[in-house]
Amino acid sequence: MKTRLTEALGITCPVIQAPMAFAAGGALASAVSSADGLGMIGGAYGDAAWIGQQFDIAADARVGCGLITWKLAERPHLLDQVLARDPAALFLSFGNPAPFAPAIKEAGVPLICQVQTLRDARRALDCSADIIVAQGAEAGGHGDARGTFALVPEIADEIARQNSEALLCAAGGISDGRGLAAALMLGADGVVIGTRFWASNEALVHPRILNRAVAATGDDTIRTRVVDVVRGYDWPSRYNGRVLRNPFIQKWHGAEDALKLEAGVEAAKWAAAQEAGDLDVATAFAGEGIDLISSAAPAGELMADAQRCLAGAAA
Amino acid sequence: MKTRLTEALGITCPVIQAPMAFAAGGALASAVSSADGLGMIGGAYGDAAWIGQQFDIAADARVGCGLITWKLAERPHLLDQVLARDPAALFLSFGNPAPFAPAIKEAGVPLICQVQTLRDARRALDCSADIIVAQGAEAGGHGDARGTFALVPEIADEIARQNSEALLCAAGGISDGRGLAAALMLGADGVVIGTRFWASNEALVHPRILNRAVAATGDDTIRTRVVDVVRGYDWPSRYNGRVLRNPFIQKWHGAEDALKLEAGVEAAKWAAAQEAGDLDVATAFAGEGIDLISSAAPAGELMADAQRCLAGAAA
Ligand SMILES: Cc1cc2nc3c(=O)[nH]c(=O)nc-3n(C[C@H](O)[C@H](O)[C@H](O)COP(=O)(O)O)c2cc1C
Ligand SMILES: Cc1cc2nc3c(=O)[nH]c(=O)nc-3n(C[C@H](O)[C@H](O)[C@H](O)COP(=O)(O)O)c2cc1C
Repeated sequence: MKTRLTEALGITCPVIQAPMAFAAGGALASAVSSADGLGMIGGAYGDAAWIGQQFDIAADARVGCGLITWKLAERPHLLDQVLARDPAALFLSFGNPAPFAPAIKEAGVPLICQVQTLRDARRALDCSADIIVAQGAEAGGHGDARGTFALVPEIADEIARQNSEALLCAAGGISDGRGLAAALMLGADGVVIGTRFWASNEALVHPRILNRAVAATGDDTIRTRVVDVVRGYDWPSRYNGRVLRNPFIQKWHGAEDALKLEAGVEAAKWAAAQEAGDLDVATAFAGEGIDLISSAAPAGELMADAQRCLAGAAA
Repeated sequence: MKTRLTEALGITCPVIQAPMAFAAGGALASAVSSADGLGMIGGAYGDAAWIGQQFDIAADARVGCGLITWKLAERPHLLDQVLARDPAALFLSFGNPAPFAPAIKEAGVPLICQVQTLRDARRALDCSADIIVAQGAEAGGHGDARGTFALVPEIADEIARQNSEALLCAAGGISDGRGLAAALMLGADGVVIGTRFWASNEALVHPRILNRAVAATGDDTIRTRVVDVVRGYDWPSRYNGRVLRNPFIQKWHGAEDALKLEAGVEAAKWAAAQEAGDLDVATAFAGEGIDLISSAAPAGELMADAQRCLAGAAA
């Protein structure tokens, strides 16, 4: 399966594993890279020690790293530490990539910018991003409001209008070969997959959470700010996170101001549940594509499935 | 281009034109049906006299009719009047189809149910719907929160699990042949297209509104309740409408309670703007796929384009 993306990244299946905060460590990233995709360490909020460990775990595998842009802006020195690990790509999301793009480009590291609107895409093109990821609101984890389906061709047209060499990936709701094939039809060169790799044996997810999550449907997910409020994370207001609904979310969604008043108690409760894998209170960041996943599987199996489906779609 | 949908409906391009309130009259419906798709009169809130006129305009063309289910429940006699016109299909959205399904099935008219969640799809299958339309939040006009991309394969799997003969269409964000091809990859048998036909010469849309709307991008659209509040339409709370942002929407979105207090004055202002085609105040119901449309065109041209793109995707 050759696309411009596989050629640019030296992979054989046009799948990039999303750099998922807390869930995507070196084990997952290296498993995906070994299975012909591009694995990513979820550098997320920028814990330098953790990121270093995960690169060590990935060892010789060629893996990239993702960082949350508005958080990186608070600790810009982190970028050099990550670039020093010679990542296969640097994946920036949620904020303005302009301050960081020059150093990444100078290091010769492919710059991947995940965007949620056409406006974001234009900014990423201005930064000479090598790969634009058009992320729709179906996605697990943080994102914005636009859906995958129209955003991808809209950005494909913008790239063409600008005569840009940038490649395009689709993200959000892609959980099997059908989604991969559809993304290519919409004008993407490949895909970024999160939720389906989150539900893999190599992800750093509590097994009790995973077991319950794979029984959920897309209807069971919701975009909310509750989790960031309880964790005290200061996300820019346009972004919220898609999670599985549970009693905790049902109670506080729409009542975030009240939650702030009780943040101390609730934060302790939430952290304990996260530790114990108690999904009545703990959070599973998962996308609308969760219904298409019926069990956790090794990441390599998911990649083999994607390859099979693609071959089928091509025929 | 043959799919199970084209065979079931006796059409040659797997495209159903959405029954758009106020915009889709007999002229548009017959133009689409003449160009190898299935045209639909937008029966919407159920003005019997208007619906009758539009069937007269469509004359000999085989066209269907759409009705808003929660509104039909307030005036159920309307169904017999529509069935008496021998529609090519009856398209129900936004509410429980169960009270109306038996009469439609008995009349031998194909029942199309537009749904927004997996739960809705199960209910429609229980009603023996012949065609399920999985409508994502990208769509122009009314809808709910889930995106097209994961909803379509999720419902395709449900139909398969139930061993149902029901066919599946995708709706929401499909504005060209790329979207049509992608929908087929996701497991759909065809598509329902609204916004792109709204931007056609045969649609009943003020030309000044259309001229401005086709310059918009998907970023310029928003889901809101403002328009229903100003019109005094009593929509069930889960649904809102995707429209183009404009100063009127920007002012009142999030301030719907304040708008209710000034509804009299604002309603008069809004109605006058609608009449005059003043898009600073008037409403354009349009979906995220609006960016993919750069000018109004005859409906037949859009169909020819879809056919061309499909042929391209197949090759
Ligand atoms: C558990 C989880 C954590 C995520 N964390 C991050 C993150 O730290 N940084 C980021 O850029 N994206 C993050 N995302 C979003 C992904 O980059 C990607 O857009 C998304 O997973 C794609 O949609 P999908 O989940 O439907 O495959 C996360 C997604 C999930 C599911
Ligand atoms: C102007 C407009 C009016 C609409 N009115 C209705 C309606 O009365 N009944 C209905 O079932 N759907 C209505 N819809 C939604 C369509 O059935 C369909 O789901 C939608 O247009 C598909 O997405 P798209 O607009 O991106 O093609 C309307 C859509 C538009 C754009």
